[in-house]
Amino acid sequence: MMRVLILGGVAAGTKVAAKLKRLRFDAEVLILTKDADISYAGCGIPYYVGNVITDREKIIVNTPEKFATLTGAKVLTGREAVKLDAAGKTVTAKNLATGEEEVYPYDACVISTGASSIVPPLQGVNLKGVFTMRTPDDAEGLKNYVKASGAKTAVVAGGGFIGLEVAENLLEQGLDVTVMDMAPQVMPGFDPEFAAYGTRHLEKVGIHVSTSTKMEGITGSEKAEGVQTDKGLIPADVVVLSLGIRPNTAFLKETGLEFAKNGAILVDKSLRTNLPDVYAAGDCAVVTNRLTGEMAWAPMGSAANMEGRVLAEVLAGREKEFAGVLGTAVVKLPGLNAARTGLNEAAARAAGYDVETVVAVNDDKAHYYPGADNFITKLIVDKNTKKLLGIQVMGPGAVDKMVDIGVTAISLGATLDQLENLDLAYAPPFSTAIHPFVAAVNILLNKMNGDLESMTPAEYMENRGEGYRVLDAAQAPSIPNAKFVDVAQVHGPLEDVDKDEKLMIICTKSKRAYMLQQRLKYFGYTDTTVVEGGLWFNELPVKGK
Amino acid sequence: MMRVLILGGVAAGTKVAAKLKRLRFDAEVLILTKDADISYAGCGIPYYVGNVITDREKIIVNTPEKFATLTGAKVLTGREAVKLDAAGKTVTAKNLATGEEEVYPYDACVISTGASSIVPPLQGVNLKGVFTMRTPDDAEGLKNYVKASGAKTAVVAGGGFIGLEVAENLLEQGLDVTVMDMAPQVMPGFDPEFAAYGTRHLEKVGIHVSTSTKMEGITGSEKAEGVQTDKGLIPADVVVLSLGIRPNTAFLKETGLEFAKNGAILVDKSLRTNLPDVYAAGDCAVVTNRLTGEMAWAPMGSAANMEGRVLAEVLAGREKEFAGVLGTAVVKLPGLNAARTGLNEAAARAAGYDVETVVAVNDDKAHYYPGADNFITKLIVDKNTKKLLGIQVMGPGAVDKMVDIGVTAISLGATLDQLENLDLAYAPPFSTAIHPFVAAVNILLNKMNGDLESMTPAEYMENRGEGYRVLDAAQAPSIPNAKFVDVAQVHGPLEDVDKDEKLMIICTKSKRAYMLQQRLKYFGYTDTTVVEGGLWFNELPVKGK
Repeated sequence: MMRVLILGGVAAGTKVAAKLKRLRFDAEVLILTKDADISYAGCGIPYYVGNVITDREKIIVNTPEKFATLTGAKVLTGREAVKLDAAGKTVTAKNLATGEEEVYPYDACVISTGASSIVPPLQGVNLKGVFTMRTPDDAEGLKNYVKASGAKTAVVAGGGFIGLEVAENLLEQGLDVTVMDMAPQVMPGFDPEFAAYGTRHLEKVGIHVSTSTKMEGITGSEKAEGVQTDKGLIPADVVVLSLGIRPNTAFLKETGLEFAKNGAILVDKSLRTNLPDVYAAGDCAVVTNRLTGEMAWAPMGSAANMEGRVLAEVLAGREKEFAGVLGTAVVKLPGLNAARTGLNEAAARAAGYDVETVVAVNDDKAHYYPGADNFITKLIVDKNTKKLLGIQVMGPGAVDKMVDIGVTAISLGATLDQLENLDLAYAPPFSTAIHPFVAAVNILLNKMNGDLESMTPAEYMENRGEGYRVLDAAQAPSIPNAKFVDVAQVHGPLEDVDKDEKLMIICTKSKRAYMLQQRLKYFGYTDTTVVEGGLWFNELPVKGK
Repeated sequence: MMRVLILGGVAAGTKVAAKLKRLRFDAEVLILTKDADISYAGCGIPYYVGNVITDREKIIVNTPEKFATLTGAKVLTGREAVKLDAAGKTVTAKNLATGEEEVYPYDACVISTGASSIVPPLQGVNLKGVFTMRTPDDAEGLKNYVKASGAKTAVVAGGGFIGLEVAENLLEQGLDVTVMDMAPQVMPGFDPEFAAYGTRHLEKVGIHVSTSTKMEGITGSEKAEGVQTDKGLIPADVVVLSLGIRPNTAFLKETGLEFAKNGAILVDKSLRTNLPDVYAAGDCAVVTNRLTGEMAWAPMGSAANMEGRVLAEVLAGREKEFAGVLGTAVVKLPGLNAARTGLNEAAARAAGYDVETVVAVNDDKAHYYPGADNFITKLIVDKNTKKLLGIQVMGPGAVDKMVDIGVTAISLGATLDQLENLDLAYAPPFSTAIHPFVAAVNILLNKMNGDLESMTPAEYMENRGEGYRVLDAAQAPSIPNAKFVDVAQVHGPLEDVDKDEKLMIICTKSKRAYMLQQRLKYFGYTDTTVVEGGLWFNELPVKGK
């Protein structure tokens, strides 16, 4: 009878335990966990704050008792692992109720201790009204405090997905919310022009965004009153610290385990550490990027569950590997969803790829169907192989669908040519006759074969349009001081436009601009460029002449 | 200057014209069309009937004038092509306004005449109140008639997607609707157990369904009053004939063109017919199935648009091929969406594959997120290569997302192992930590490696559970006369159940049943089977002992 000791019981730990007991009911599986809860839905916590989910019970997937009874695994809560003896095959844990140390022997040990919120060593971080956002207790605390204190202002420090989700949920409760981040952008992992669009959107719905802003401390004597930053004081009855997480691996420092720089445990594809019979999975471990083969830390509930499943099979004696992650993420913001997978443009360039990209704006369903809107899609490909490397999508609709197609394609090594005419699902309530994913692929292919000559929004943001004369190709004049050209009326060279002039063509979604470009090229114009994403995505004023 | 003559101007025809003019503005492109409208949204028509789309203008994508002005292509409406002379390179068309025949020369001819509704030669089909459902005029006519006549009952003949969409839209206007079909099932292309579930759902929301029912005529003297069938008379103030479509190729009979059995034109991957300089695309042509390489007639707006785009490039002198279709489709029914792609089980067996399938029921998003429901997913794979061959999905949510992943996977030749741990997008409003697509893949892998021993719903429907004793593994007793077993309480052999008894285990969604099976196998039970899809998908009463 194999004794499997699992340290930590949220996503990866409970998954290993449940699946292993199904495969090997004779295995003796014991979960030690520091907290009172196990198996809670960490990703649901922001929504509990916002009363989208009203019942705390709902985000507790299982109580320790119910989980143990159902699966046959044992669970001991209130036990904090403090020492791993890999040679002696024991773990020492502190019983938080009694303060005593207890020693647990194992045949196999699974480290799934997860990660904890980073709290910077700044003045005021321990004041009332300051919260991290990691556990159901965190959410409960914030929620109660907002209600009891009548809080009117909030600062969310950290513009990652959890931070933005919390910001959304606080906004919906009527608070005046500021998101601040030390980084020059929110929405990490997205390329800057996407983050910029996201920021403009957040500001439009009423969330203040302050990037490149350093937190210096939290003001207040008994409770939080504001956040002091290098740009000034921001009033805050509530402060949420969403500054990232750190693997819970400090207690393992002296074991001889190998770690990544951030303290996450290195594992092979079967989730084995460098120590015999010690495994790791979930937020405390670092896996590989499926595309690059590089180390990838993916502290996500989805990866944790999949790793847990693979590890259970490995522990049951099977040959099994976890192929790795792609860095997929999706977030619901008020009125705008955003999702991404694979490499962003910067990461692709850093990885040495010769990169081509496009930003395309396309209907997200039949334009005449109620609720139809747009997807803004960025594709990142390797210019030489035409392999898809990454995709980013924003819009009020099913951005997850677009990215899931991308995930599948990238995982299978697909080239643009293979994706060109995919027979994706179409009916007016769901999609467009030419699916928005295929439409984006087509536009990139047009660009790569030279039909479309264009400037990316990133290039446009960098003022690469300088020196270009602006042609407004929208259906009706939309750009002050630009020359308006109705493509339908172009039957020859344009009056007062020289054929060698540098022309930057813009319309709403770049479709008419593309048509106009083709027409102008036919009539001998030599230096035209279409601004990808058009007025839908790019910020006015246009930066041409 | 190349003269390109295009016969028909809905999806494929207008796409060829617009794209070709973009690529080769010097090409002289002329569309001849019999109707007054071009470029209308055929797929939106059922929703116009139901006032989901209220503005007729909206389903007319372009008027002939606007299209011509914008693209530079010429359009002549009211011209019905009556003769193609491939040797002389001319088409003769009848001017429907004057009755005169006109001759149009071409360098390249594109046949995109589409397809028309089949109207059976039965009594009463020309009565007032009888409609087909193919053009904006059809929809307008039905809509006005329902309103003006105060119609209370409707029969939709034909349980395909258009028929069901029209039925939904008539139901929403308060009519008492019956869908009838000569075939033993509605929802063609879905396997019978999925169609059966769809039928039960339709009946639950109030649509009568009568399958294996032959229409013998329509009764009424001045206007439709009922539909006479081999099973009796069904009252019907309105009758919608949605019995399928037939390619509009009758006028081409004597040209030497090669046709499929149904009259659709055979083309190669570049959309060339067997006649020089004659091409065909859209509903009047037959393309290939991307998976099997066999001929595939896919009269869908999506395929027509993609074919049109490829053909434009071919006409512009490029090497370009259309990879083919997979038979993807999606439909929105009241409270239930359904989508499919690839081969269904019957087709996969007919194609000679050694087939394995699974039906899985999984959460469609985080179970605690508002609006969460379930996907019912059927995967069809080749047992030898583990290649995915097809997928069918039903549920109130984003079934298109599931199928789009399947389309991408099948198009790229993916095996189950490659799909096992895809890093698909997860956040609670969108998905589950283990994505429902991956969850279905996992369950099928469990089945294929022997962990899960199960009976498909199809086998269950065939009464293959006969002789099995039923174990109710739900959370609480749910099946009359079955032995209830709480898996959490199973710590040894069951009382009064022999180890060699044939045991059929059922719970709500097969998860607890699977757990119980694993437990029972551990305690020495040798002949257990889990009913896939559980009580969620299968119809009670259970057919065991």
